[in-house]
Amino acid sequence: VLLGRIDRTATTPVYRQLVDAIRAMIAASDLVPGDALPSTRRLAEALGLNRSTVYRAYQELWALGYLESRSGSYTTVRSRADLAAEPPERASGLIAWDERAAPRCRVLFAEYDRMRQRRATVRATCVDFATLAPDERLLPVPEFRSCMQQVLARNGRNLLQYGDTLGYKPLRESIAQRMRHHGVAVGPDEILVTNGSQNALEVVLQFLVTPGAPVVVGSPTYGAVLSLLAFHRAEVVPVAVGGTGLDLDALAAVLAVRRPAFVYTIPNFHNPTGVTTPQAHRERLLALCREREVPIVEDGFEEEMKYFGQAVLPIKSMDVDGLVLYLGTFSKVLFPGLRIGWVAADRAAVQRLAALKWAGDLGGTHVTQAALDLFCRRDLYEIHLKRLHREYRKRMQTALRAMDAELDTSVATWTRPQGGYTIWLGLTGCTVTEDELVAHLARCGVLVTPGSESFLDPAEDVVHLRLSIARTDVDEIVEGMGRLGRVVTEVVTVKRRKGRQGGSSCRASA
Amino acid sequence: VLLGRIDRTATTPVYRQLVDAIRAMIAASDLVPGDALPSTRRLAEALGLNRSTVYRAYQELWALGYLESRSGSYTTVRSRADLAAEPPERASGLIAWDERAAPRCRVLFAEYDRMRQRRATVRATCVDFATLAPDERLLPVPEFRSCMQQVLARNGRNLLQYGDTLGYKPLRESIAQRMRHHGVAVGPDEILVTNGSQNALEVVLQFLVTPGAPVVVGSPTYGAVLSLLAFHRAEVVPVAVGGTGLDLDALAAVLAVRRPAFVYTIPNFHNPTGVTTPQAHRERLLALCREREVPIVEDGFEEEMKYFGQAVLPIKSMDVDGLVLYLGTFSKVLFPGLRIGWVAADRAAVQRLAALKWAGDLGGTHVTQAALDLFCRRDLYEIHLKRLHREYRKRMQTALRAMDAELDTSVATWTRPQGGYTIWLGLTGCTVTEDELVAHLARCGVLVTPGSESFLDPAEDVVHLRLSIARTDVDEIVEGMGRLGRVVTEVVTVKRRKGRQGGSSCRASA
Repeated sequence: VLLGRIDRTATTPVYRQLVDAIRAMIAASDLVPGDALPSTRRLAEALGLNRSTVYRAYQELWALGYLESRSGSYTTVRSRADLAAEPPERASGLIAWDERAAPRCRVLFAEYDRMRQRRATVRATCVDFATLAPDERLLPVPEFRSCMQQVLARNGRNLLQYGDTLGYKPLRESIAQRMRHHGVAVGPDEILVTNGSQNALEVVLQFLVTPGAPVVVGSPTYGAVLSLLAFHRAEVVPVAVGGTGLDLDALAAVLAVRRPAFVYTIPNFHNPTGVTTPQAHRERLLALCREREVPIVEDGFEEEMKYFGQAVLPIKSMDVDGLVLYLGTFSKVLFPGLRIGWVAADRAAVQRLAALKWAGDLGGTHVTQAALDLFCRRDLYEIHLKRLHREYRKRMQTALRAMDAELDTSVATWTRPQGGYTIWLGLTGCTVTEDELVAHLARCGVLVTPGSESFLDPAEDVVHLRLSIARTDVDEIVEGMGRLGRVVTEVVTVKRRKGRQGGSSCRASA
Repeated sequence: VLLGRIDRTATTPVYRQLVDAIRAMIAASDLVPGDALPSTRRLAEALGLNRSTVYRAYQELWALGYLESRSGSYTTVRSRADLAAEPPERASGLIAWDERAAPRCRVLFAEYDRMRQRRATVRATCVDFATLAPDERLLPVPEFRSCMQQVLARNGRNLLQYGDTLGYKPLRESIAQRMRHHGVAVGPDEILVTNGSQNALEVVLQFLVTPGAPVVVGSPTYGAVLSLLAFHRAEVVPVAVGGTGLDLDALAAVLAVRRPAFVYTIPNFHNPTGVTTPQAHRERLLALCREREVPIVEDGFEEEMKYFGQAVLPIKSMDVDGLVLYLGTFSKVLFPGLRIGWVAADRAAVQRLAALKWAGDLGGTHVTQAALDLFCRRDLYEIHLKRLHREYRKRMQTALRAMDAELDTSVATWTRPQGGYTIWLGLTGCTVTEDELVAHLARCGVLVTPGSESFLDPAEDVVHLRLSIARTDVDEIVEGMGRLGRVVTEVVTVKRRKGRQGGSSCRASA
């Protein structure tokens, strides 16, 4: 029977033809469960095939669930239920997953969908002031490759086995040394390596937030923190962020009557405003929290980007009482794709956070951690940072100069950051909503982040935009600020001459 | 003043001496906040030093927070609070973290501490029947290194930037192909890459478990699932696991009155029992859950280890209704340190799980995913699996033969797994508790996993041990089973001749 179906001249491999032929026989009940197949030797002889071809076909049929074989006995046809159909055309399944989902997930579903939609709108011709990730054109890939090669050659076997949940110890030492460089005295056992800052935030929230617990955040603040806090059902207590950081009088008033699970703060190059808080502010914030025994979560996501040279040390550097959980990351200056960040904290807190990290994924990837560690130890990290500093000093200066030239200060105000990547732009008296403005800017070839994402309750009268210069070079910045200026002028013009609302003059230029 | 403190012949670098000297002057208030330092050029001339040495010292002092410098003006001494002291001797801090921790964390803290304690007891002379991780002696490190090298050379820049939360798409295609090999028809968008199975479990639990929700698990089952379920405050509904898997009559009775968030099952080489459920069992389980619209979480952690050749396909292969969330992992057959696993599910469910993955860490490490993908595409994974199959077939046969020789079947019963790594040993009428037995075995040079970890409510009269042959070669297995046999005989002997409880005859042999 089989013989007629094998065509040695066909493009389909012979073993594949054999598989299909036997499947067809099973489908047609020419072979039924329990039937023994000839041995590979006999079938090969009968068909004039190489025995290994028959063996391969049997293996494939076995893997597909058609055959059963026990060592030392015949291969037989197995009883089996129908397999699932090929996937692409599959209609939605039996379960309405959104109804089954834990209700607290919904905020994350919405946020994730929004993020994906936004990414889908990115075009190559746009100037990207939205993304807060290092410019991949500046990433030292060959140097990293060499480090990776060396650690795999030297110690691959151990690095590829399960490892310490805290993270690869030499990397923790390197991180501790970086922290000391910023005035923070910690040892390797006071550091938990996480999958980037996001993962650090997640374990900290798992650790300290019970449903309903108050958590103080700036207003505005890093948008993803608001979603995560909602997911953990914290009560978000916003405190205004001004030109020098959190309003500490307002914070003191909150702390007088509440005991929050923690205060979340971003003292350097605040996301989204770019504001850096002065030393005195940091001291008072620490003193306030110490008095009320409230932990501080200090997000130092751009600690390394002090490219204008002003030194303001992390709050953690003064934290003699172990009050501060410091979040650090390599993702904003080196390779985001490594997903390596950390928490530096009191040893007892780190142990507890490690238990949560362990529950979440047992621990991070030691082989990439080891390559990064070698990258630091070879001083490649220092060299890379110096290069970034030169580049971003130029970019920030260019951006601020271009804004001075392009924007009308009677309607636009913006921050003048002392480092980092983000500038915070406020527009008063806009004739369009923030969403409309952001969409219009995208059509005109400028991507920005809407400010409302950073507020729990966005104000209605001021439109805010976060501008990131992370992934735009000097020329792109000049071009992008020009486009931005024209749109802002237009929005203002439209406002002044009421009635001429339509007609986007900018669309043509995009 | 400074001149007297610089000693060019000392082993301490000159710049370091300068740093220390200036720090000392600040500490002694010889320099106070606001004081201007001489320019690097002037100080270098005055001290007869290279200007770059002075520059380096200023940089260091700046980094340590002693100095302030704005471009275009003098460097001045900065006002600063005391920095935290060096860490090692630090007493515990102000915050009693365990009191601040969310109460649901406690179960994980206890579990993590227990795990760490156990690891601390491992000695090199022990035969390790406890660890369920592939034997690193069998890991193909050079082949992986070559793949890593190539993907970094070809596409490093993109792989090291932020990537798709679902995971590196070509790897999802490779995984989909592996799944098809096991009869499961899924495409790359029905797969979410996770940081190992543990991370897959965590996102699934975040997705489907609200506090108090019932979840059906086997009794016994994989211990970490019990801790994770407790952390998520699920109501664990145990259903007995017998020689052919979950007791389906008991499950039907549960499903008649409850609607659990999901049923968790490990149909192949069940952890801890090693039991593989037959095809008919899988079909009935699927039918039961389909009828009640209850999702199934199928843990296929050792799907690839069917080294005795019997083909029983995953439940997911018959899942035309998208009921099954399938968990897979590379950690039990390849490199655990890569932390790469996956969930294969209905497209809608995968999108929702991706949102939770995103909240937890934005997504996995694409560079390791790409290297693993190339490893699969070069057929190195297939070749490696064939090698593992040969090796573990031998190990399992050796283990079962050794147990037949060493253990008395009137007191000991054990499973005869059709693949995978674990054998489940039950001892009746033991004179010691399970904990005592496990500790005694460790003293005698055999590490095993206590069975009680796998039960919500362990039975008191039967002692269970899980024996893993994952990291023991044939010789170690023979030696280990010999030691185990002697201890079991001793425990039984002690029982028969009551009164002779002390005297561990085994201690000497360890």
